[in-house]
Amino acid sequence: MSTVSSSTTLTNHQIRLASRPVGLPTRANWQSTSEPVAQPGPDGVLLKTLALSLDPAMRGWMNEGKSYIPPVGIGEVMRAGGVGQVLASNNPAYAVGDFVGAGFGVQEYLTLAQADFKRGGLFKIDLRMGSLTQWLNVLGMPGMTGYFGLMDVGQPKPGETVVVSGAAGAVGQTVGQMAKIKGCRVVGIAGGQAKCDWVVKELGFDACIDYKASPSAVRDGLKTHCPQGVDIYFDNVGGEILDAVLARITRGARIIICGAISQYNNTTAVQGPKNYLSLLVNRARMEGIVVFDYTARFPLAVAEMAGYLKDGRMKSREDVVVGLENFPEALTKLFTGENFGKLVLEVAKA
Amino acid sequence: MSTVSSSTTLTNHQIRLASRPVGLPTRANWQSTSEPVAQPGPDGVLLKTLALSLDPAMRGWMNEGKSYIPPVGIGEVMRAGGVGQVLASNNPAYAVGDFVGAGFGVQEYLTLAQADFKRGGLFKIDLRMGSLTQWLNVLGMPGMTGYFGLMDVGQPKPGETVVVSGAAGAVGQTVGQMAKIKGCRVVGIAGGQAKCDWVVKELGFDACIDYKASPSAVRDGLKTHCPQGVDIYFDNVGGEILDAVLARITRGARIIICGAISQYNNTTAVQGPKNYLSLLVNRARMEGIVVFDYTARFPLAVAEMAGYLKDGRMKSREDVVVGLENFPEALTKLFTGENFGKLVLEVAKA
Repeated sequence: MSTVSSSTTLTNHQIRLASRPVGLPTRANWQSTSEPVAQPGPDGVLLKTLALSLDPAMRGWMNEGKSYIPPVGIGEVMRAGGVGQVLASNNPAYAVGDFVGAGFGVQEYLTLAQADFKRGGLFKIDLRMGSLTQWLNVLGMPGMTGYFGLMDVGQPKPGETVVVSGAAGAVGQTVGQMAKIKGCRVVGIAGGQAKCDWVVKELGFDACIDYKASPSAVRDGLKTHCPQGVDIYFDNVGGEILDAVLARITRGARIIICGAISQYNNTTAVQGPKNYLSLLVNRARMEGIVVFDYTARFPLAVAEMAGYLKDGRMKSREDVVVGLENFPEALTKLFTGENFGKLVLEVAKA
Repeated sequence: MSTVSSSTTLTNHQIRLASRPVGLPTRANWQSTSEPVAQPGPDGVLLKTLALSLDPAMRGWMNEGKSYIPPVGIGEVMRAGGVGQVLASNNPAYAVGDFVGAGFGVQEYLTLAQADFKRGGLFKIDLRMGSLTQWLNVLGMPGMTGYFGLMDVGQPKPGETVVVSGAAGAVGQTVGQMAKIKGCRVVGIAGGQAKCDWVVKELGFDACIDYKASPSAVRDGLKTHCPQGVDIYFDNVGGEILDAVLARITRGARIIICGAISQYNNTTAVQGPKNYLSLLVNRARMEGIVVFDYTARFPLAVAEMAGYLKDGRMKSREDVVVGLENFPEALTKLFTGENFGKLVLEVAKA
């Protein structure tokens, strides 16, 4: 058993949800607080946050109302998955210094009772399989989302054409590289030439469409790069891009609804896909995915992905912002498309 | 071999597409023509139209542009499935007096060469299995659409809640009754109290929501009649009703996109389902169905349905308009919701 010396008084800096945003979140929606770090109880652990995953889904958690998980309450520490290290442990399964993943929240420390290990998503991570930030990317929630969305919902077959939006983002990079590994033709959609170049040259996508290039860039690009139509579309963005792809799907196409980042900060109603009747014409399917349904199979998928990282068939890129206090601005990068790769908030060095 | 006596000169009255409608079709979009009936060639048949199926899908066929079948060309006889009788035959497989189904078109006679039997959808019908109009309803395309849409795409399980819009229409009545036979709780959506009463009292649905009763009738009705949510939604209408149901689906729900009659006469863009992200939250699926994909399995499904008609578990209602010349006005009844049951145009008596 090891605990933090009682003479050390650690302060836990936190970021809490102060109010529900209308449109894009601002500084005013957040509140910085600090409180003394609680010592772990019997069989509990004290964890130090090293890095947090910043995800588009966070925007949804800030809204009132029913979703796949309850919203973050006003005054609560903002929910966030992350990686960290065991600082003190009363539990034989966790040793001081072990690296772990958990639902840390946007804060520097997390004290977990054993009864909360499962609910808190606590698990050990092995840095031989991937780096800390890769454990938030390809080996983490975004990677798992991409893996199970593509494989289970999309069911790719060799030779099929797969289109993925948010191609340079955390989920998109996994989806595209997995689809290449499975023998598909892969076309990304991303914002800006730099991202498109990286996706094609570094990740090996067959093509990438810069949706910012012109108002008709997606429509034209799909025509050029998907001459046989789109068999699988992995949608992270919704809006007009979803409509443009719907107009080009093949018979029996699968559309995986993973997110709709273009719509999350709407102050008006979500834009429904006007071309949804293409599902009828093409006997196609549009289906949602929530990664939490697949937790039992994470270890197998992580092992598979770690193998691809090792043999070089899978690459990853993380965009690291340093400093807990920079969380509010870092988060908005997701919605302006400023992040390049998986967005990570580094809270402390290992 | 039997042919029509050459001394008989039959005239074939036809209705052709004169122009593509903007919004609801009007008289001006149609042209009445007549021409002499062609005698059947070697191995061909001459058919007399008895009744035609009037379907919402016809509106789509009148539009330019790619769909699951090519549009009807300007100046062409309007496409329509129907039932009729063999008037003359040079083919040993068809005897004079046989009842048949085929793509008759909106005209009084159809001469088919043997090479066109398959493309023309020619098949014999057995009036012991169902009446002529039932062969256009439960045993015809609408029935097959409902059967395969519900069974193959919806995959109903006993105890699940199934909602169907256009419940008193041709497809809806089949869907609801099949779902009852399969042990589901069934809630219809239809326009007006008379239709709702019929659906519940005659067809045995558990409830029916009159969408015309008030602006919030569907929202309120779903809350009342689907307290556990909606497991399967068979959508014939699209628009706001689709959105209302999306807000009430259960985890793993299946939405069958069969049509969108509320949108077919739009002069503005189709209204996309604003609540489509409910698919994500609920890991649900929205999938299109086109009945032509299931033709190989029609005979089995027809036999099953005929059994239900015989034992009284399946009832059918047809709304018969008499007279080829009344086709234009009859068709618009579908879009104003005036028809009550499967809309049929009687062209001649058997």
